[in-house]
Amino acid sequence: MRVLIIGANGQVARHTISKLTEAGHTTVAMIRDPKKADELKALGAQEVVVADLEGDFEYAYHGVEAVIFAAGSGGHTGADKTILIDLWGAMKAIDTAERLGVKRFVMLSSMGTVDPDKSDRIRHYLVAKKLADDHLKRSSLTYTIVRPGSLTNESAKQLLKLESEIQVRDNTITREDVATVLAKVVDRENMYGKTFEILNGNVQMEQALDIF
Amino acid sequence: MRVLIIGANGQVARHTISKLTEAGHTTVAMIRDPKKADELKALGAQEVVVADLEGDFEYAYHGVEAVIFAAGSGGHTGADKTILIDLWGAMKAIDTAERLGVKRFVMLSSMGTVDPDKSDRIRHYLVAKKLADDHLKRSSLTYTIVRPGSLTNESAKQLLKLESEIQVRDNTITREDVATVLAKVVDRENMYGKTFEILNGNVQMEQALDIF
Repeated sequence: MRVLIIGANGQVARHTISKLTEAGHTTVAMIRDPKKADELKALGAQEVVVADLEGDFEYAYHGVEAVIFAAGSGGHTGADKTILIDLWGAMKAIDTAERLGVKRFVMLSSMGTVDPDKSDRIRHYLVAKKLADDHLKRSSLTYTIVRPGSLTNESAKQLLKLESEIQVRDNTITREDVATVLAKVVDRENMYGKTFEILNGNVQMEQALDIF
Repeated sequence: MRVLIIGANGQVARHTISKLTEAGHTTVAMIRDPKKADELKALGAQEVVVADLEGDFEYAYHGVEAVIFAAGSGGHTGADKTILIDLWGAMKAIDTAERLGVKRFVMLSSMGTVDPDKSDRIRHYLVAKKLADDHLKRSSLTYTIVRPGSLTNESAKQLLKLESEIQVRDNTITREDVATVLAKVVDRENMYGKTFEILNGNVQMEQALDIF
């Protein structure tokens, strides 16, 4: 498939480019900063499109069959950017996919979005992510919503805990494992229309994805 | 009618309490800070309920026939509060009205929410307000959405420009006039299901409300 990754310069997204390339997909990486283009090509991105979620980015969808939304305003910006990128940007990415007939959409979401009011510190972030997810669910797109818990840079474990809403949050998850999940679900039909949380756990990844 | 004003300590809301009282309505003022209770009673609020939009506030709806949502995080807090009050708080106020069978809901919104991308400085705020308005429109409630332009503390003009989307933004509007509109539309059937922008203009208020 020809897969567009929005927010391709993020840490999870970079791993995802590699995983998609290994799986034989054609990856289009959308970034704001053109200086990152060479690095992303080295990771396997066949095309790099420089575009801004806060501006016009429709041209990044040219020929695209699936979108992975991995953009995030990050911890270094204000909550105004949480609204404009994580929520409004995501909604526009979804609307653009609908308008252009790109049916497949994978959302990198966050654990805890089921009920933001259970969180104190990042409640506003979880609200923004939840409302973006809700917009995707209301759309006509074939979605998968992936909600990882706390991320680490450890090497991949290939072992998951995967549930609709994980009750016992007794682990973290590596960014590389999240990326593997994103890359795997993009054309995995049993994951169409599904929303789930993931941590590292004790089930082999393939099995965890099969039995959900 | 027994009308609940959420965010009753705001400047527009305070005027609204007076206007509702003059019109013979029973006003329930919901505020966070109990120290403001006496002031709001002096303005005409028959009841003051101390409750927080970020916590449990369902008990403020007791016996209520209409809700006016006039809460806003204001300019002194961060955009995290824009998400938690203007958007998430509003959505919960709407959901609570639906759940408890309060059919009538008047939203104090903002000019410019039709297309937040036309704005630079307060785009994130307009996105939050727009998404709250969209949630209300999707609900089963009988809504009116009032979108004033730049607010002033001048004395009431009683003259309006009122349009779905005002093209020529050649004026401001007094907070007292906005309050009068909120108080008038609450039981005005021709305004049910309507969304409009207002500035001060040259049409008598009653006529502007009648002909829309």
